[in-house]
Amino acid sequence: MQRRDFLKKAAAGSIAAGTALGASTAAHAKAEFKWKMVTTWPKNFPGLGTGANNLAGLITEMSGGRLTVKVYGAKELVPAFEVFDAVSSGTAEMGHGAAYYWKGKNEAFQFFSTVPFGLTANEMNGWLYYGGGMELWREAYAPFKVLPAAAGNTSVQMGGWFNKEINSIADLKGLKMRIPGLGGEVLRRLGGTPVNLPGGELFTALSSGTIDATEWVGPYNDLAFGFYKAAKYYYYPGFHEPGTTLEAIINKKAYEKLPADLQAIVMNACKVVNMDMVAEYAARNPGALQTLLNKHKVELRSYPDDVLQQLRMASQEVVAELAKKDAFSAKVYASYQKFLEDTVAFSTVSDQAYLNARAENSA
Amino acid sequence: MQRRDFLKKAAAGSIAAGTALGASTAAHAKAEFKWKMVTTWPKNFPGLGTGANNLAGLITEMSGGRLTVKVYGAKELVPAFEVFDAVSSGTAEMGHGAAYYWKGKNEAFQFFSTVPFGLTANEMNGWLYYGGGMELWREAYAPFKVLPAAAGNTSVQMGGWFNKEINSIADLKGLKMRIPGLGGEVLRRLGGTPVNLPGGELFTALSSGTIDATEWVGPYNDLAFGFYKAAKYYYYPGFHEPGTTLEAIINKKAYEKLPADLQAIVMNACKVVNMDMVAEYAARNPGALQTLLNKHKVELRSYPDDVLQQLRMASQEVVAELAKKDAFSAKVYASYQKFLEDTVAFSTVSDQAYLNARAENSA
Repeated sequence: MQRRDFLKKAAAGSIAAGTALGASTAAHAKAEFKWKMVTTWPKNFPGLGTGANNLAGLITEMSGGRLTVKVYGAKELVPAFEVFDAVSSGTAEMGHGAAYYWKGKNEAFQFFSTVPFGLTANEMNGWLYYGGGMELWREAYAPFKVLPAAAGNTSVQMGGWFNKEINSIADLKGLKMRIPGLGGEVLRRLGGTPVNLPGGELFTALSSGTIDATEWVGPYNDLAFGFYKAAKYYYYPGFHEPGTTLEAIINKKAYEKLPADLQAIVMNACKVVNMDMVAEYAARNPGALQTLLNKHKVELRSYPDDVLQQLRMASQEVVAELAKKDAFSAKVYASYQKFLEDTVAFSTVSDQAYLNARAENSA
Repeated sequence: MQRRDFLKKAAAGSIAAGTALGASTAAHAKAEFKWKMVTTWPKNFPGLGTGANNLAGLITEMSGGRLTVKVYGAKELVPAFEVFDAVSSGTAEMGHGAAYYWKGKNEAFQFFSTVPFGLTANEMNGWLYYGGGMELWREAYAPFKVLPAAAGNTSVQMGGWFNKEINSIADLKGLKMRIPGLGGEVLRRLGGTPVNLPGGELFTALSSGTIDATEWVGPYNDLAFGFYKAAKYYYYPGFHEPGTTLEAIINKKAYEKLPADLQAIVMNACKVVNMDMVAEYAARNPGALQTLLNKHKVELRSYPDDVLQQLRMASQEVVAELAKKDAFSAKVYASYQKFLEDTVAFSTVSDQAYLNARAENSA
């Protein structure tokens, strides 16, 4: 639509709608832009799928309906793992998922979601917004005509649900565990067998003994899936996904057709959801953990210290090897790694020191 | 301005501006609303003041200039501690500060900024957005016709700058420390003398021996103030301010005059800044700490464990006493305390466990 046409329609539409809507301005016109958002989540999936819904709602609300976004769950328009290509080709203007799903295009994409023993949610935001991360992420997606934005974070995940005890590194040998991505690679290096299964098949696979263990997200999502009925032990911490950034991806051409204010609304709505999802998990996980422990009598276990140490060393190897793939991967790794090292040093006198002081004395 | 008038002007303004601005819609009208934002910070103060600037900029940008916000530093329009009253009376439509500055109106306001040994930034957001906190905060400010929004967070602060060693609880006796609010009350209970001084006077007071110690924010802000030149030791963690929520306050009448899309833009811009400031500190603090340690040879020290334990017990007393002031304070305390207890239990298997695993193995 041309700008002048829009102005006429905007004015006409707004006046017509004004009677019903009460306070209204030119912004309350009929939708100038109608976008589709394809997602990698089941429709309305708690936290992740509802985060995508929130994002769409915020854009519509802040634009006064000038830009509407209709959300499609996985498979509704395209399968989960075709979301990136659908946005790249313009089949959908927008998508919601996570960068590690597209590692087939470039393994370095995984740095924009999470890596084992890497940055937490707030630290990821520090790297992305103020540490050069977003520039690298935009560079990564540029060949696909796709713009990335951070749009959600699961925070530190749990280690997962196990039917075998992990008392030493030897217990990882032969362990069949659903753990995708780099976490799975770490397990493989320590003798385990990573398996990749979609979320909907995990309960049955765990119950039947097809797998010995599975990671998922955290108490809020795990409780809903009923894993406590299929596994003996709930391990922590989730070293493999310490703060998984979810992404909104936007077709570049569609974005460039928007006026500057709608562009700002789209990008800032992503930032709101990026923060809001962390808040939602922060509020819902503690209560869900209490339910798992008190009502369902779940046995909570920490990975032993020496197992964590081995996992960390293997993680460092796996992540460092990503840097060897190509020049771009090397650049991303260097940026991420420097940020991580400074951040860990700071955390020991900041977040980590505080959380220990608060908890050690809480008995 | 009436809506119809605005529509005409919007269309005219947009067409006129369109040539220069490129892509433009009806939203690029002349400002329909011009707001003033008074703040408790020195103009452009890094992190806090620049956060207020960001907030104003985001609102202007997302509204396509329909709502502009001019930022005033402390004393430019009103003194820092009159910001709340200025927004309440409508002298300014908006303010940026922190709830604990207004504890003279009700001590319970402090729960909406931070309390010693309380919630971290993400946990605060969990309580506010999904745990009932925002509803209580709105109730707290309702008699003043002021709407609150979380709009920034300093994250876990540092303990502060000391010219006396803290080796045992006895070393707190007689300690003259600049530490305002509840942290100061905790110090007083352990025999110290809390002093309240504005930031600009701290360096001189510390250099001259007028005070023995001062807390401020964290490495990024502390480095800029040059405290390393005036103090021997840099203590951690900042038990007294584990995640101070900054606030935007909005005159209710001014807010109600906005159409729904601008209301959504104002409230969501606050959420963006709420997240963004945490990201900025996460990115800038680690490097500033490295500079303090490596270039300025600052001596970093942890409060001893038994001192932290005493501080925590005193903090619990001080915070619990807030609940006894009145029925509203009791209600806020009950909500906050329940959330805190569940959260601490979760953090021990989540954030805390992860940060320990990441750091313990990093040697």
